[in-house]
Amino acid sequence: MNQNLVNMEYAVRGKVVIEADKLSKEGKPIIYTNIGNPHSVGQSPLTWPRQVMALVDLPSEVGIDNPNCQTLFPQDAIDRARELKAMMGGSGTGAYSHSQGVPGIRSDVATFCEARDGVPCDPDDIFLTNGASAGISHILTTCISGPEDGVMIPIPQYPIYSATLALLGGRQVGYALDEGNRWEANVEELERSLAEAKAKGTTVKAFVLINPGNPTGQVLSRKAVGEIVKFCFKHGLVLLADEVYQENVYCDGKEFTSCKKAAAEEGILGEVEIASFHSTSKGIFGECGRRGGYMELTGFDKEVVGQIYKLASSGLCSGLPGQVMTSLMVKGPPPDGPSYASFKAERDGIFGSLGRRAKMVAKGLNDIEGFECNEAEGAMYVFPKVTMPPNAASAAEKEGVNVDTMYALSLLRETGICVVPAQGFGQEEGRSGFRTTFLPEEETMERAVELFKVHHEGFVKKYS
Amino acid sequence: MNQNLVNMEYAVRGKVVIEADKLSKEGKPIIYTNIGNPHSVGQSPLTWPRQVMALVDLPSEVGIDNPNCQTLFPQDAIDRARELKAMMGGSGTGAYSHSQGVPGIRSDVATFCEARDGVPCDPDDIFLTNGASAGISHILTTCISGPEDGVMIPIPQYPIYSATLALLGGRQVGYALDEGNRWEANVEELERSLAEAKAKGTTVKAFVLINPGNPTGQVLSRKAVGEIVKFCFKHGLVLLADEVYQENVYCDGKEFTSCKKAAAEEGILGEVEIASFHSTSKGIFGECGRRGGYMELTGFDKEVVGQIYKLASSGLCSGLPGQVMTSLMVKGPPPDGPSYASFKAERDGIFGSLGRRAKMVAKGLNDIEGFECNEAEGAMYVFPKVTMPPNAASAAEKEGVNVDTMYALSLLRETGICVVPAQGFGQEEGRSGFRTTFLPEEETMERAVELFKVHHEGFVKKYS
Repeated sequence: MNQNLVNMEYAVRGKVVIEADKLSKEGKPIIYTNIGNPHSVGQSPLTWPRQVMALVDLPSEVGIDNPNCQTLFPQDAIDRARELKAMMGGSGTGAYSHSQGVPGIRSDVATFCEARDGVPCDPDDIFLTNGASAGISHILTTCISGPEDGVMIPIPQYPIYSATLALLGGRQVGYALDEGNRWEANVEELERSLAEAKAKGTTVKAFVLINPGNPTGQVLSRKAVGEIVKFCFKHGLVLLADEVYQENVYCDGKEFTSCKKAAAEEGILGEVEIASFHSTSKGIFGECGRRGGYMELTGFDKEVVGQIYKLASSGLCSGLPGQVMTSLMVKGPPPDGPSYASFKAERDGIFGSLGRRAKMVAKGLNDIEGFECNEAEGAMYVFPKVTMPPNAASAAEKEGVNVDTMYALSLLRETGICVVPAQGFGQEEGRSGFRTTFLPEEETMERAVELFKVHHEGFVKKYS
Repeated sequence: MNQNLVNMEYAVRGKVVIEADKLSKEGKPIIYTNIGNPHSVGQSPLTWPRQVMALVDLPSEVGIDNPNCQTLFPQDAIDRARELKAMMGGSGTGAYSHSQGVPGIRSDVATFCEARDGVPCDPDDIFLTNGASAGISHILTTCISGPEDGVMIPIPQYPIYSATLALLGGRQVGYALDEGNRWEANVEELERSLAEAKAKGTTVKAFVLINPGNPTGQVLSRKAVGEIVKFCFKHGLVLLADEVYQENVYCDGKEFTSCKKAAAEEGILGEVEIASFHSTSKGIFGECGRRGGYMELTGFDKEVVGQIYKLASSGLCSGLPGQVMTSLMVKGPPPDGPSYASFKAERDGIFGSLGRRAKMVAKGLNDIEGFECNEAEGAMYVFPKVTMPPNAASAAEKEGVNVDTMYALSLLRETGICVVPAQGFGQEEGRSGFRTTFLPEEETMERAVELFKVHHEGFVKKYS
């Protein structure tokens, strides 16, 4: 068997989740907070995008051209579906598209990026992808050419990076985020990490930035993003800008800055290779099952883009329903149409509730003795530090698991809450904890916070 | 850059197609016969599955539970959508599913496999995938652990195999299909190929069978499938059974035999590792853009299945719209419902027309002097052998391309027909030709056959 695959870990769907699924099958109610999967824990899909989606899939004679269509669908959904069908030139959602995705949908994405960043975006730089994962895999596959090649990843990081690197046989080069300073990144640490990797004979090829952070929930300052972009420029590193939580910013006074915008403001746009990822799975849509998303490439050599194109082609194209949802994510209903008010109300409702839960969970966890938890400024997660009782480590060793996993399994068995052990994301030596989403509905999350407390007190008693 | 990626070729979307897209942008009408993409060349989607799909995506209050629903949708589509929604347990198509796919949909697939093969099928052996490509990639990734590892692939083969092997840094071990005997596979050639690979120090891990054949269009006899299954059993090879064209059999007196069924009849089911792939992209559905499909694993070691599960998990899950379409492919409308007659008429219409085109194209190409073309017994392709005029090879060398590519580019520029050079699939030394689908509508295909002739005569004159 492929040893790289055997070595690969993917904690978000690892040991604890497999145990949770088993308990669930046996009838135990589980609160799944292990994964950013909003619709699975009660978030409703936005109505209008689903109406457009349905009409795009329906053959026209039983859909947009049927005289009864308006009895079920609003006019602005019909109009948008007609526009999307025209973009697909008669092939519809049943045909493979261009390997980079339907040209008209890439234009929608380009328009969105231009409005966000204030700089031009070429639709030919956009690759529509099956979620962000596929784009990340394409770029890492392109970068890693041998076992000495490495990629800088934040510690803690999202396991898709460590997993893909393990599978490709490349090296992880960790740079620490500063937990004491709201998980900020600082350039001294980046330089230290890079120098250490070079000293070990690693050829560092690329740099991963996750902003807003996963599992850490921070929203990086404009200054930090600018420093990272300049750092990548200085050292010739490909910058993987994981920006899938760009709409999930809850913290007053903070805003999302894209790497591309920062590069433009620093005067180095086009001179640093940036691959920016976005997804329909996160934001307010939460359309995970659709597997939609895009990556935008800027500053890449034409020959490299050709290789990435070839790689995308070998998978033919991303799913068309995901492409359509990406278009709807970047271009909502028209403000003067019949659906705008309800669409906005649904969006605002989800966003407002996420913001309240973000604050409530961080506060609730901080109120537990032995927990320290940075505020979730963005994304969908908190990543508390948990002080373990003195005998936990040796008990875990006896069970043959790390202490984070033992803690998460204990929490699961006693409360039904399924979190991911912090160890799966990487953390400072000696630190312990877990990642939890705040996606279940507000009442459930409030109950979960109480259960975290009850369990922790019991756990401390047991292992003290 | 990753040298394996640079070395990888993917002819189906290679040089000739890029040129065709360029000409198309400039206004030249192109007949695309390079790819099995039925909806892009005029095949309509089946109506009922799209109606169910639309209803599954619509929030219930504006869909199945809306009092106006029946003005637009037939009752059997509403009923089936309700059933599928129930299977997804409230999460719907917007949530990530279990890494292997929605359990109820895997049960539908298992029921289909049992009916086809007459042997039990466990839903836990089914992995729903993004088309067949994703499953193929999972299995090859699992098999290849170093540069000495190889996989037996038919010559000619479908480029996903050669491309994925190149990317993984594994070796291709070609076994020749017998063009003189309707592209049949025979066990002497398999043994010869394996022995030769072993002599070269290759550790052969797996075997690829494509049946019905791509690009060759043959439907293997029961005897040949049985011999291949026994060959894999004898040598401990993982059998990748690419069975995506199982519904596309047009030849009287031939029928599709799955590898699993053959293994059962040979008494070795469970003792040989078989991964069977199927897809919504082919068959009569032709739903390529949906990226739906499944693989069934039989005879695999539990530990290996665990690793494949982990790999599937790292991509979270296949797209839910593709999962839903897979369910509809394996389980159509109820025979006593309002949609059955029209569904059957649509299916029969597509199938009948494909069969007529298969015969017409093979006959038309054989009528061209210098062409030899086996009948397309199944799948969507013919793979004619073309005798090149004496000066073609040297002219191609001057242009820096192989002669098949020069021929295909000449055909494209003069007639607008976009085929794939045979060289991209592999073939006997000294053979030339191309692959063409017979997917464009009947009139278009008839015109294409005439254009093949006119072009060939001109080409022969030019290079004689």
